[in-house]
This record gives sequence, structure tokens and C-alpha cells, in this order.
Amino acid sequence: MSTINYDLRRVRALLFDVDGVLSASVVPMTAEGGPMRTVNVKDGYALQLARLRRLRVGILSGGRGEALQRRFSTLGIDPEDVYLGSSVKLGDYRDFLLRHGLADDEVAYMGDDLPDIPVLRHCGLPCCPHDAAPDVKRVCKYVSHADGGHGCARDLVEQVLRAQGLWPSLEEDLRW
Amino acid sequence: MSTINYDLRRVRALLFDVDGVLSASVVPMTAEGGPMRTVNVKDGYALQLARLRRLRVGILSGGRGEALQRRFSTLGIDPEDVYLGSSVKLGDYRDFLLRHGLADDEVAYMGDDLPDIPVLRHCGLPCCPHDAAPDVKRVCKYVSHADGGHGCARDLVEQVLRAQGLWPSLEEDLRW
Amino acid sequence: MSTINYDLRRVRALLFDVDGVLSASVVPMTAEGGPMRTVNVKDGYALQLARLRRLRVGILSGGRGEALQRRFSTLGIDPEDVYLGSSVKLGDYRDFLLRHGLADDEVAYMGDDLPDIPVLRHCGLPCCPHDAAPDVKRVCKYVSHADGGHGCARDLVEQVLRAQGLWPSLEEDLRW
Amino acid sequence: MSTINYDLRRVRALLFDVDGVLSASVVPMTAEGGPMRTVNVKDGYALQLARLRRLRVGILSGGRGEALQRRFSTLGIDPEDVYLGSSVKLGDYRDFLLRHGLADDEVAYMGDDLPDIPVLRHCGLPCCPHDAAPDVKRVCKYVSHADGGHGCARDLVEQVLRAQGLWPSLEEDLRW
Repeated sequence: MSTINYDLRRVRALLFDVDGVLSASVVPMTAEGGPMRTVNVKDGYALQLARLRRLRVGILSGGRGEALQRRFSTLGIDPEDVYLGSSVKLGDYRDFLLRHGLADDEVAYMGDDLPDIPVLRHCGLPCCPHDAAPDVKRVCKYVSHADGGHGCARDLVEQVLRAQGLWPSLEEDLRW
Repeated sequence: MSTINYDLRRVRALLFDVDGVLSASVVPMTAEGGPMRTVNVKDGYALQLARLRRLRVGILSGGRGEALQRRFSTLGIDPEDVYLGSSVKLGDYRDFLLRHGLADDEVAYMGDDLPDIPVLRHCGLPCCPHDAAPDVKRVCKYVSHADGGHGCARDLVEQVLRAQGLWPSLEEDLRW
Repeated sequence: MSTINYDLRRVRALLFDVDGVLSASVVPMTAEGGPMRTVNVKDGYALQLARLRRLRVGILSGGRGEALQRRFSTLGIDPEDVYLGSSVKLGDYRDFLLRHGLADDEVAYMGDDLPDIPVLRHCGLPCCPHDAAPDVKRVCKYVSHADGGHGCARDLVEQVLRAQGLWPSLEEDLRW
Repeated sequence: MSTINYDLRRVRALLFDVDGVLSASVVPMTAEGGPMRTVNVKDGYALQLARLRRLRVGILSGGRGEALQRRFSTLGIDPEDVYLGSSVKLGDYRDFLLRHGLADDEVAYMGDDLPDIPVLRHCGLPCCPHDAAPDVKRVCKYVSHADGGHGCARDLVEQVLRAQGLWPSLEEDLRW
């Protein structure tokens, strides 16, 4: 059923870059000259659901900002799993695995540009949006049909939850 | 003439979700980490016209915010028909029908994601934007050609008003 | 050379609607629930050039806001030719023609929705963006290939100026 | 390997226009009626890398604003190489070359509209985004596949750095 060539039942944790993955590549500029990130409401729904279904969800981003922290807190992501201002992503990735007792092959990571490559090379399921850098696509097991910020996270989360029987059935009470 | 397989003359009320329906799925993030919703000026024109033609128009959204209330008030939607922060949409849907003495088959609802499914299953004319979740599309009688925020509401409202002879003719004075 | 079936050398004045024409149909919502309009830098260049070449440029919009007034003032459009909060566009159109001694066939107007139809029916060259309402397209002599906010004004202005020999040649000093 | 018909090893400096090149053509309007520019995170990565690899990077824009200065400073572009409010771009272009001892054929410039043409005619490698004005495309040696604000700068910078052996290899530690 899944379009991903990986046993998705092994995935216990989902990690995401922000700029170009959860947020679009092209965004308005703030008064401070930084990116005003985007929210994707369908990504948000799926990430919230993943947390409720007890999957680990984490963030590895070189970016910073209180708006990001509030956004991820609203989605139910634990504050210690949100690595902002991450300059050496591989170090933060290892910290995340250690803290949660995870093995590489239990982790999916989605990134879009060169600083994401070291983590993509270590995790079990390296993923990227459709508009990722060519170098990134080359090291990924799954390239989403959706662009960064435009549903690539929803695509991955939904496929993982479905493979694990955790996606809501249409008969289920959806009031969680 | 209509592309909708439903007797549109029965529709007396139009209900809409906000995020992903009246507002786009991908929007800028506010300083508080929430979605900065979008306005579609052509949707707005049609919703205003629907109210002037005495159709009921209502909102069922899990979102909140004063900007939304002002927007809907400007369009002539009655404040008590704007259900924001709606966590159990089916309950608010039933309240709306009860207050206005409406039957299910007199109501069209447009939603885009899983929390909309219970209402979509009850109303007479379940509709969704082109970029709705696959589960949602499966339970809808009408999938608009337009994406959420990009004219799906205009599409529905215009077809309903035309079917009821309430869309302005080109000869009419358009100064309403 | 032009794609417009009209003698563009007769055009002495260019009138534009704002929402859906100079500004996109889908825009962020302000804190007040109104549309946060868009700027198109290539439209802006052409409108400024049109004014420098002594064509009349005017605005007919139901919208309001100081941002709009500042924008049009920056482009060199005379404040008395900017009709904001225009509820009866045909009246403002006639005022514009009277004040400048213009005949209908010397005026091009670009609009996108039903309130624009009365003016489109009176002016010599009725135009609209590619994503205009179907009723509007039906009464227009020219439908631009570009959507509202995405270059439809640039398209019209450039064709008019070229037809009148007023578009800068590549040899010209472009420092105007 | 490159899609640009120019010996990219000669390029020592990269100059960019802002509106319509580093920023999209269609952007939200600020309260002051000006353009709220966009940030492209992948452009940003490549521009920062170009500076670290000791290429000259400069800006030639008619626009102004503190947000722009902060943005370019964050990317490592020297403040004296950021020409804002540039009304005669050719003069600023010559100043840039003189200050850095550069010859025309060592400079690539990317612009999108008529005021960019004089500089495009002088520099060795004139480039433009896919949605540049037709007059501009005619004088360019390279038209990017990407639109203004949507990756045209990344495209150019990446090709130049690759041609010079300065793009990071996948084996390299990407922690620069």
C-alpha cells in the first residue's frame, strides 16, 4: 500500500528539518531579515496524531525563534525533542536517539539541503521533499511527491501511521 | 448546468470549515506560532451575496482568533453561526440545524480533513476542495476543482445560487 | 504585434481594480480580518513608466487602506485618480472621464468580478486577468494570460505602451 | 556539466538584483505600501557558501530597507557590497568592480527588468530568472529554469561553485 520501500512498521521516531521541509523554501522576510515560516494545517494534524499514537516526533533545525517553539508545543512535541539553532545536526540526532533508546533503523528523518546529509546518511529511513537539493535526493530512500511546506510531512506521517494500523479508520470516532 | 450531482434547489444553508477550505493549507506562521489565515476576495464576494439572498451561511472551525470573527462579520455572517474553537464539530452542526429548523438534506458542508468527516457524513451535500485528504474525498458528493483557500467556496456558492436563480444576471444592476 | 484586438493607439487612460487585479485573489488576512494585498514589482515598473509617458492611470476599488494610497502615490498616480471605497464604480468611472475629458473608447479598464461589469461594459477596452470570474470574461475584449496580481497589469500596460511607441528601446538610456 | 554557455571558472564575483530575483515578483504589501520581500532558504545557503569560498557577492537594488541589510549581513555579504536605493545601477556596478579590481568578464549579474539591462550589457555573464521581462531575456547569456525568488540564485551559485570545484562533496564534512 505504501509508496516507500522500507518496512514502515519499524519506525518509532520521526525527525524533521524546518526550513524547506515543515516550512516552505520561499517565505516572507521578517522585519529582522529572517524567514517568516509557514504553517501547513494538514501536516499539523498528522504530527499531532503521531504524538497521540505514541510515536516520537522531533525537530532538527538550524533556525530559531519563539514562534517555532510555540508551534511545536501546540502540536504536542516534547520541548526537549525540538533542537533549534542546531549547527551540528548529527550530534543532536545522536542525542535524540540516546535519550529515547532508539536505533538508527527505527528513525525516519526528512531534510532538504546539504546540512541534512550527515543525518540522512545515518538514519534508517532518509526522506526529502520533492524540491530538495539534488545532492539530498541522491542519499534518500524516499522522495515525497510534495514540496517542502506543502505536505511532505503529512505524506510521510500518514504512510507510517497507516502501515502501523494507527491511522484513524473512517468508522472510528475522530474526536481524539 | 451544475457539475454537482445533487438537487441544489434544496440547499438552504452552507457551512464551511476554515483552515484548508476558506483559508489555504499553507499559510505564514504568526509570532504566536499559529496560522496567519488567507482571504480569498472572490469567495468573499459570493458569501456576501449568499447572505443577501437569504441563504444561511455558517462556519465550523477548530481554529480561533479575532481576525476570523471580524472577517465573517464583514461578510454578513451572523455571529451565532460562526462556531470557532469547535472541538466536536458534529455537536455544533446539530446546534446550527436546530436553531434554524434545518433538515440534513438542506445543508451543504465543505471540509478538508479527518475532523470534518462526521459532519460530512450527516449533511445532505458533503463537499471538499481539490486538495482535501483522500479519506475526505471518499465521503464527499462533490470535490471542487479548486484548492482550499483558492476558490472552492466560490465554486460551491456560485453553483448553488445559480441553481436557485439567485446569481445576478449580467443585465441586473449589480449595485446590491 | 499586440495580442489585443483593439487599436491600442487610441488608449489614453488605464483604469484598474485592486483586489484580484493589481493584488492577488488569495492574500494573507490582516489582524483586522481584511485582505493584506500584494505588490507585483513588474506591474509597478510598468505603471510608473505609463505615468512618466503621460498616460492617465487610475484606480477603481471597493477596498480601502492607507497602504494602498501610499503604494499608488509611489507609482506616480495622482491621488484624485485613486477611487477607494468605490461602491458604485460606474459613477466614479464617469467622474474620472469627465475630469480628464476622456471618451469611453480612450479608456481601458481591467476588473475581475461582478461589480466590475458595469464599467467593463462602458469603457472602450474591457480587460480582465486569466482567473477572472466567468461572467467577467464574457464581457471583456481581452483576457490576459496572467492571473490577478501575477502580472496582468504589466501585460496590458506594456502592450499599450509598445503600440504607442512609448516602451523604452533597448538602446535607450533606461535611467528615466 | 553546467547548463551555462560560459567558462564559469572565470567568475570571481556574483551580483544580484533583489525584487524579482532574490525576492519574488509577487509579495505581500507592507503597511507602508512597499513590498514585503521574500527569503529563499536554499538561495541563502548557497550565497553563504559562496562567501565562505571567497567569491565576491554583491547586491544592486533600487529598493531599500533595514530588513534587507540584516538579511545580507547574515549571509556574510560585506555591507559595502550591498548597493540599496541604487538609481543608476551601472554607476554602482562600476564602483563595485573598481573597489575589488574586477574585470567585466569576471562578473555575473542576475536581473529581471529593464533597469537591469545596462549592467547586464556590461558584465561578462548576464543572467536572469525564468519569469524575467522579455527584453531582459534577450540580452542574457543564461535564463535560469527557476523564477525570481524561487531558486534562480541558488541555480547560478551552485553551477559556478561546482565548475570551480568549490561545491561541497558528499564525503566532505558539511559542518563549515
